[in-house]
Amino acid sequence: MPTRLSNYFLRTLREDPSDAEVTSHRLLVRAGYIRRQAPGVFAWLPIGLRVKAKIEKVVREEMAAAGAHEVHFPALLPREPYEVSGRWAEYGDALFRLQDRKGSDMLLAPTHEEVFTLLVKDLYNSYKDLPLSIYQIQDKYRDEARPRAGLLRGREFTMKDAYSFDYTDAGLDASYEAQRDAYERIFTRLGLEYVIVKADAGAMGGSRSEEFLHPTPVGEDTFVRSAGGYAANVEAFTTLVPEALSWDGLPPAQVFPTPDTPTIQTLVDSANRNQPRPDGRDWTAADTLKNVVLALTGLDGSRELVVVGLPGDRDVDLKRVEVAFAPAEVEAANDEDFAKHPGLVKGYIGPWSADGAVLGETSATGIRYLLDPRVVDGTEWITGANEHGHHVYGLVAGRDFQADGTVEAAEVLAGDPAPDGSGPVELARGMEIGHVFQLGRKYAEALGLKVLDENGKLVTVTMGSYGIGVTRILAIIAELTSDEKGLVWPPAVAPFDVHVIATGRDQVVFDTAESVVAAIEATGREVLYDDRPKVSPGVKFGDAELIGVPQIVIVGRGAADGVVELWDRRTGERTSLPVAEVASRLP
Amino acid sequence: MPTRLSNYFLRTLREDPSDAEVTSHRLLVRAGYIRRQAPGVFAWLPIGLRVKAKIEKVVREEMAAAGAHEVHFPALLPREPYEVSGRWAEYGDALFRLQDRKGSDMLLAPTHEEVFTLLVKDLYNSYKDLPLSIYQIQDKYRDEARPRAGLLRGREFTMKDAYSFDYTDAGLDASYEAQRDAYERIFTRLGLEYVIVKADAGAMGGSRSEEFLHPTPVGEDTFVRSAGGYAANVEAFTTLVPEALSWDGLPPAQVFPTPDTPTIQTLVDSANRNQPRPDGRDWTAADTLKNVVLALTGLDGSRELVVVGLPGDRDVDLKRVEVAFAPAEVEAANDEDFAKHPGLVKGYIGPWSADGAVLGETSATGIRYLLDPRVVDGTEWITGANEHGHHVYGLVAGRDFQADGTVEAAEVLAGDPAPDGSGPVELARGMEIGHVFQLGRKYAEALGLKVLDENGKLVTVTMGSYGIGVTRILAIIAELTSDEKGLVWPPAVAPFDVHVIATGRDQVVFDTAESVVAAIEATGREVLYDDRPKVSPGVKFGDAELIGVPQIVIVGRGAADGVVELWDRRTGERTSLPVAEVASRLP
Repeated sequence: MPTRLSNYFLRTLREDPSDAEVTSHRLLVRAGYIRRQAPGVFAWLPIGLRVKAKIEKVVREEMAAAGAHEVHFPALLPREPYEVSGRWAEYGDALFRLQDRKGSDMLLAPTHEEVFTLLVKDLYNSYKDLPLSIYQIQDKYRDEARPRAGLLRGREFTMKDAYSFDYTDAGLDASYEAQRDAYERIFTRLGLEYVIVKADAGAMGGSRSEEFLHPTPVGEDTFVRSAGGYAANVEAFTTLVPEALSWDGLPPAQVFPTPDTPTIQTLVDSANRNQPRPDGRDWTAADTLKNVVLALTGLDGSRELVVVGLPGDRDVDLKRVEVAFAPAEVEAANDEDFAKHPGLVKGYIGPWSADGAVLGETSATGIRYLLDPRVVDGTEWITGANEHGHHVYGLVAGRDFQADGTVEAAEVLAGDPAPDGSGPVELARGMEIGHVFQLGRKYAEALGLKVLDENGKLVTVTMGSYGIGVTRILAIIAELTSDEKGLVWPPAVAPFDVHVIATGRDQVVFDTAESVVAAIEATGREVLYDDRPKVSPGVKFGDAELIGVPQIVIVGRGAADGVVELWDRRTGERTSLPVAEVASRLP
Repeated sequence: MPTRLSNYFLRTLREDPSDAEVTSHRLLVRAGYIRRQAPGVFAWLPIGLRVKAKIEKVVREEMAAAGAHEVHFPALLPREPYEVSGRWAEYGDALFRLQDRKGSDMLLAPTHEEVFTLLVKDLYNSYKDLPLSIYQIQDKYRDEARPRAGLLRGREFTMKDAYSFDYTDAGLDASYEAQRDAYERIFTRLGLEYVIVKADAGAMGGSRSEEFLHPTPVGEDTFVRSAGGYAANVEAFTTLVPEALSWDGLPPAQVFPTPDTPTIQTLVDSANRNQPRPDGRDWTAADTLKNVVLALTGLDGSRELVVVGLPGDRDVDLKRVEVAFAPAEVEAANDEDFAKHPGLVKGYIGPWSADGAVLGETSATGIRYLLDPRVVDGTEWITGANEHGHHVYGLVAGRDFQADGTVEAAEVLAGDPAPDGSGPVELARGMEIGHVFQLGRKYAEALGLKVLDENGKLVTVTMGSYGIGVTRILAIIAELTSDEKGLVWPPAVAPFDVHVIATGRDQVVFDTAESVVAAIEATGREVLYDDRPKVSPGVKFGDAELIGVPQIVIVGRGAADGVVELWDRRTGERTSLPVAEVASRLP
């Protein structure tokens, strides 16, 4: 039985929704797939549910092939396990919290590591029970600060989350590879190009961690890759640290007045005018040491200042900073912070002053001083002298100042060497479509999941966590495959295989269309049949282009002569065919 | 491919869960179908998900047959629509409320009338678009005061909720009948006996309303039925009102002292001793008028006292009282209430005193006096005289006192006449398995859902709402079909069709079992294969009985001779069969 547009619960809209920032959101709403209920919260209409179900089917089949068993957890969970794991606090405002009528704290789960861990702890106790991989396809909740981009970043979204349980590291590696392979098969079946990049595990902890990114210039994530095969998101990129240099024979540092040098560029210009380099070359921003004061707010609400020193030709990258200092929240220090630390002279901050060390392990300010890994011992720098209107030249790392450690906070630039020695990296943008990572023993330790090993000894279980955003993937596919006229679904996820349009008022048209529909359905294809009697051909064609079923069959004037048109939605190509051949000529 | 118990995520438990109050909860946990996460909140394990999916499939097929389209709404919704409908307040503590990071009020939806109404309002505007029936199978939330009985009354539960939209009353009737018919087909397919009873619409408002109850002595709902075909739950039962009588010639009321008559029975005894009936018969409790003082708390927090007068042979039925005064909350008046109304003499309350009317439309107490419909004009009563230690005899309704109205608050007793004249009713117990009702224009009016009719006039849409608790039905089926050994699924919802057990250590047993499994699967049946190599036959048989797959095939010692046993889980009957015949002999 075809789905008949004359009574299908589907209405296309002429106008773009006013709040749509991205193509997928705009088109999915206009074509009647979804409707917004609240910021980042959507209802699924019948045709949208069909696409979602197709993606879920692919995911389920590949999870089964990877040996994972499907379960289903509630969205509403008690606070306790998330308290034990630390995530009740770590998630901050992104966690939807509520209390039940008895005042018990509960949450809407953003992911389910804790309760999967407890479930396995409840039911399993021996190494013989392992390995185990279990997953669910379930609605998750995150109270995003800026829910935007429709389904690309919603507050309620459908996710496949899988968790693996092993009692050896080698077992975890095998479980991880099985999920990773399944992800490759899933994205291949869905026709989604992907790059696997090293990822930071963020709030989740753990060791090996990779993201599947779909490379696209409009992606919200930046990643780097080298011709030699290195790939990482910028948060996970690590600096290839140069060798330390000897400071034998370097002249002592000197303080010079540098009025009117509010920026790195004005400082460099001033230096080239007033303190030319001994070797005759020009100073550049790379010769300056920029010191950025950050304020970290810990989970306990405490506020700590940190100064990050990095070459002046780079900015700090806030995403890298966030990862470096997680779970603390990071912001620029404010006037109040500076007022409390008069030793930091705003605009002229440096690790050293004429009176000695200001920052670093020899200082008594109590402020941590962390350096970019490129600032190795023996390198010379122009930097603030902690005196208004003054900088210091020839300040040598290791000789004149020390740090309390290093930090990966500087932005990654094209041409930076990959940490594995595989050559310079290029920067690209992508959209995250999947994430696999090794949690290790973090959750099992926190929640006490142990099993008896071969020797009867209790060992802590090691876990992996593997996520695919089902609704996000749907939006990405919509985004990538659409054109200016509407959606263009790839066959693997299209809501229907064929869209048959009857145009005109003659009975022969509708009779022919019915027989075409029946013939196509007899091949096992799903048909959307536009049988609306009083709608103009133009509107029907426009709707078909907007809805995006890959193959369209137009039954119109030619019907009387036994001829119909096959219209390829992607290429726009139209081919006239005898009615009898339509079903067999469909791709 | 069969599901192999050697690596299936299923563990049966020997012990009953300590918090299980009912059989279904106990067995579903022990057999590895569900696990509790919080009071009234459960996770679904793989075998449980299979049963749930089968029930959902039956529901989906019958919804499609009824012409309903599937959609899917979020659980997390904004407050506004529920504010407009009044349900934000009406739901009281049963609604899970929360705030997002911006402080916006949100809720976890208990049902979705409001947002379905708004969706249709968004997309439809003409009578030509109607009728429309849309539904979802979705997780709902109600913060039950006493979540108990496992899935029978959870706080997170899966429900099929359908909504119909029409622009005429006749259209609503037709949509209602289509859903009602679908429910009959669903319950028939699921093998669930049902009675359709008139129901009160409760907090939902509306006109026609029927519940599908499964009749069972352990049901939590009471319903009545007459031999003549009347059926209603007790909340919806209405009293067949007797004819009013003439009070011509009745003697005047008289006050008598009645010390030590704290109960109806002591009052009746006192009356028979001291004020014998003129006709010589004994007074009975039915001759007394009991006056119960209730305190109603409105949604706005206001407290109002109401006195309910009813024959002394009946108690008030709290469920009927709740419906009668909904959405107010009802409790017995407390000492503080009495202190504020000295006119009500506790233990001796009546509508009349020697000084005149105390309650009823002629009184000035401001307390509403509502009578059971049986207390018609001309009936004579023994009741409190509003004077400590005194009652009044021969008090005649209509002559000596009036009421402010009637109320259906008295309990229904076996033998009461059905309101449709179909004879006396009997009382029975049942479990609610479905509910269909006509919302009428309540939600459409509140939320402004109108369409243009044939004459171009805007008319308000009329709606129906139709619910089936999917997880509740699953629990009821488990409850009804189980026996002392475990679950016994009916074939329509069984997680597998056949459970094959290999017992023993001989290779021939496992080889034979594999071929039996393959032969059974070739018939299209789903197989759970207990291939565990080191588990004793006793444990395997016990697990099979607990898990409850309807047909069990035992491959054991006889395998060497080509013989296996077919074991019917329900009857316990075992039949020896040649291996080659197993697949064809399965029922």
